[in-house]
Amino acid sequence: MSENSYIHGYSERESERLADQAETLTGLLHHDTHYPAGSRVLEAGCGIGAQTGILARNSPGALITSIDISAESLKRAEEKIRKEGITGVTFRQGDIFRLPFEPASFDHIFVCFVLEHLAEPRRALEQLRLLLKEGGTLTVIEGDHGSAFFYPENEDAHRAVNCLVTLQRRTGGNGLIGRELYTLVSSAGYRDVHVSPRMVYVDDSHPALVEGFTKLTFTAMVEGVGPEVLRDGLMSREEWERGIAALHRTAEPGGVFCYTFFKATAHR
Amino acid sequence: MSENSYIHGYSERESERLADQAETLTGLLHHDTHYPAGSRVLEAGCGIGAQTGILARNSPGALITSIDISAESLKRAEEKIRKEGITGVTFRQGDIFRLPFEPASFDHIFVCFVLEHLAEPRRALEQLRLLLKEGGTLTVIEGDHGSAFFYPENEDAHRAVNCLVTLQRRTGGNGLIGRELYTLVSSAGYRDVHVSPRMVYVDDSHPALVEGFTKLTFTAMVEGVGPEVLRDGLMSREEWERGIAALHRTAEPGGVFCYTFFKATAHR
Repeated sequence: MSENSYIHGYSERESERLADQAETLTGLLHHDTHYPAGSRVLEAGCGIGAQTGILARNSPGALITSIDISAESLKRAEEKIRKEGITGVTFRQGDIFRLPFEPASFDHIFVCFVLEHLAEPRRALEQLRLLLKEGGTLTVIEGDHGSAFFYPENEDAHRAVNCLVTLQRRTGGNGLIGRELYTLVSSAGYRDVHVSPRMVYVDDSHPALVEGFTKLTFTAMVEGVGPEVLRDGLMSREEWERGIAALHRTAEPGGVFCYTFFKATAHR
Repeated sequence: MSENSYIHGYSERESERLADQAETLTGLLHHDTHYPAGSRVLEAGCGIGAQTGILARNSPGALITSIDISAESLKRAEEKIRKEGITGVTFRQGDIFRLPFEPASFDHIFVCFVLEHLAEPRRALEQLRLLLKEGGTLTVIEGDHGSAFFYPENEDAHRAVNCLVTLQRRTGGNGLIGRELYTLVSSAGYRDVHVSPRMVYVDDSHPALVEGFTKLTFTAMVEGVGPEVLRDGLMSREEWERGIAALHRTAEPGGVFCYTFFKATAHR
């Protein structure tokens, strides 16, 4: 993946989206990831550090190395972590396919919202496996845009979501990767593969999720690709606007929104 | 709902399907439903008793009354329960909209896989509410066929699943009712409404679920409406067969299947 092909772009709004997402979903996705003090942990693809702080806070004393291909993202991740008062995280620029580490350098590898953007996710997992010591663990978290459903039901909204998948596919990524994690991690040579779905279920008894997930995370993400959808004629402006309006309705009283993340764990 | 409009029919294979489904999903759906000894429980729409035994075993000493509109189903439910050696369940024939009970006759009401078949699910919930004592609880469990997704992804398979929703809609039912439970139960006048999604996630590390859920429950249910789909021309025979074959592939090694049930609890 080249920096420029990152589908969600690098705008301010996108940064806020990633921060909101990390905040709201922390418990659901990360509550069961704890690495022992002194263990060597690689965070492969840390981006702007949306997960790095969570990782570090959940594993005090772990020796975390966070890498990303983008120098710009890394800089912001470092700033974010410094502001949060977290120490013990080392940042290094690097390509996930050519990482500058000796084989078996790490006890644990953590990969979150990264594989969806890669044309060769399996090869990435194979490369990472070489960096794990025998018996070390891999943890992968990915979303799946095809898992989204909602009330009120709306066909244009589904089409709008599907545009995200189509655009991501064009840059070599896979917006439906969550459901594939078991197969992908297994085929990359890991053992004891275990996948658990993590559904975000949002009705109006959960106002923080309505705001933090349905609106600021998911709908904002779909809205973010509007210019490309219209530029490429994937939907007409009218259809697109109906779809986006329908997504917003799922965040109104009586609306419901469901989305599933998948978390895989495995051993080398 | 008249007896004849029950979309899944009353064949032997259908009975087996319901039994397999109940067996496989017991833990996921029912582990957190326990009624105190001596409490009066109404199971509204027990069908052939697929859930009745589970209910009774989870709540020893509860006084369970199970009703259904179909005399034939009731007879089989009674036989099933007797064979299982369960006592303390009273069976009565009755229409959910005109039940022969005094107001506030029950401490708890349990409704499982019933509302999806009713043209007026909200009115059913309103009627049931009158039978609950003040502070009594309602528990509702429903599926949602639009929640199904799988790997490998296949468009014909999605269309085949959608035929189930279309056919159910024609008989006044709603195969997408799971996602609506929060709104439905709230609007029927209940309070403290809480909905939790229960996803069945099946990869080939769960062979019992591959067999018991992906094949014998879900795919069998879709296959069961094949004659109507072809009769009504909802899909061509070729498309239908491709869709069914694709559903079977999700149960082969490397395949993944996801489906979400919803469980609502509330108080009168």
